[in-house]
Amino acid sequence: MTPVPQVLFVGAGPGDPDLLTVRALKALRTAHVVLYDALVSDAILELIPRRVRRLCVGKRAGARCIAQTAINSLLVELANPGFTLVRLKGGDPAIFGRLGEEIAALEDAGIPFAIVPGITTASAAAAGAYIPLTLRGSARRVQFVTAHARAGEVLELDWRSLADESATTVFYMARQSADEIANRLIENGLHPQTPVLLMSDVSLESEMRLRVSLSKLPDAVHEFPPEVPLIIIVGEVTSGAAVHHAGASAAEAPIRAPVFV
Amino acid sequence: MTPVPQVLFVGAGPGDPDLLTVRALKALRTAHVVLYDALVSDAILELIPRRVRRLCVGKRAGARCIAQTAINSLLVELANPGFTLVRLKGGDPAIFGRLGEEIAALEDAGIPFAIVPGITTASAAAAGAYIPLTLRGSARRVQFVTAHARAGEVLELDWRSLADESATTVFYMARQSADEIANRLIENGLHPQTPVLLMSDVSLESEMRLRVSLSKLPDAVHEFPPEVPLIIIVGEVTSGAAVHHAGASAAEAPIRAPVFV
Repeated sequence: MTPVPQVLFVGAGPGDPDLLTVRALKALRTAHVVLYDALVSDAILELIPRRVRRLCVGKRAGARCIAQTAINSLLVELANPGFTLVRLKGGDPAIFGRLGEEIAALEDAGIPFAIVPGITTASAAAAGAYIPLTLRGSARRVQFVTAHARAGEVLELDWRSLADESATTVFYMARQSADEIANRLIENGLHPQTPVLLMSDVSLESEMRLRVSLSKLPDAVHEFPPEVPLIIIVGEVTSGAAVHHAGASAAEAPIRAPVFV
Repeated sequence: MTPVPQVLFVGAGPGDPDLLTVRALKALRTAHVVLYDALVSDAILELIPRRVRRLCVGKRAGARCIAQTAINSLLVELANPGFTLVRLKGGDPAIFGRLGEEIAALEDAGIPFAIVPGITTASAAAAGAYIPLTLRGSARRVQFVTAHARAGEVLELDWRSLADESATTVFYMARQSADEIANRLIENGLHPQTPVLLMSDVSLESEMRLRVSLSKLPDAVHEFPPEVPLIIIVGEVTSGAAVHHAGASAAEAPIRAPVFV
């Protein structure tokens, strides 16, 4: 018999509360405690009933308020039979959510858990830009990579696999690495004119989209407000994205109109 | 100003109605017509109000009831201002959903549309098996590939990029290609003992999971009922999956217990 989970890892999706799954919404409403990351949107936090205790264990690139090991310990400490601890993570907890480390801590302590998947940012970004991530024939593979590196660190990625013109490649947390992404992809064979889509605040009213060619990617990140996490989608699928044209200021009101307007 | 969408591409997710997004559920409830694929679960179809006209434009591997070009034409024909046509697709419409072809038809006809993302099967599979798809340090990339090929056809995939031990590789629609997947990945350098997770009916009561080593993948598909679409996840992340042990019959009741039980 499956034991009742004491910890629910819940995907918050990209930010718009309407992009929570029905199960995630139920989990927030029945939780006793919610531990959430800094990337979870305010609109989603507002859905948590007032009686529920909430703790921010937020991590942002560069400024980590609580170490990962402390989060792991906190999960084990707070978990209790007959009690639901929700661990709320931006996007899908299985994708770049450091889920493995938190699961390992619970397994070591014998604490039953379950996972509620979330819409990963790449899916919501594609929807917001009116594009698919795969195309029959020309984009048969879609790959997600985290491009988060501390200042001065080199990304250890398999650039040969990433520089594939018949794939769509999505870089999460990509702001600091835009120069390296452009240079390495071009070095490894991608055409400098390969279309690239940059997005911030995916699914929120403040969503911004900018399409440029790969060679212009390093400049394009400066069109976005500092500190805002960026997702970068590289590949032919982005050529039809509904966006600002390259060169226009991304600081203007976000454009949400379909491409054919 | 953004025109009102006449067509909504809606992701149905993997099958469990609780894994619909809140927005997808709203779309089903306010639709005038729903065009759905064969892979959309009965439980989700039951959420569509009775007054709503529904049309199956289902495609299954090998047996396509309506050609893609006919679906494209039907979308254009049925779309109308002041009317909501929902195009319901399994998983996330942006990932292996042939969204590009349907969008192109609408753009050619000047019909406004929008996209509601869905939980892609890989995310729900990971959640159901209690595993992440990425691991800090050892699985920094996750890639999705469609492994659907007609009988006798060879898959044109970049096997060198797929056979990466520091990536997690997910093959959608992978039943017919299991032999080729195992052989090619091993030829291209993956260890024959690399753990692999096979799943069917992801998120449904009938969900089945089987973990084997890569070299045993060709035999493992026969443990599943014929015709059921399979998803195959290759990589170290699957080593902790909650599953039948290799060799046990997958025809037994599905196991949903966490790995540490």
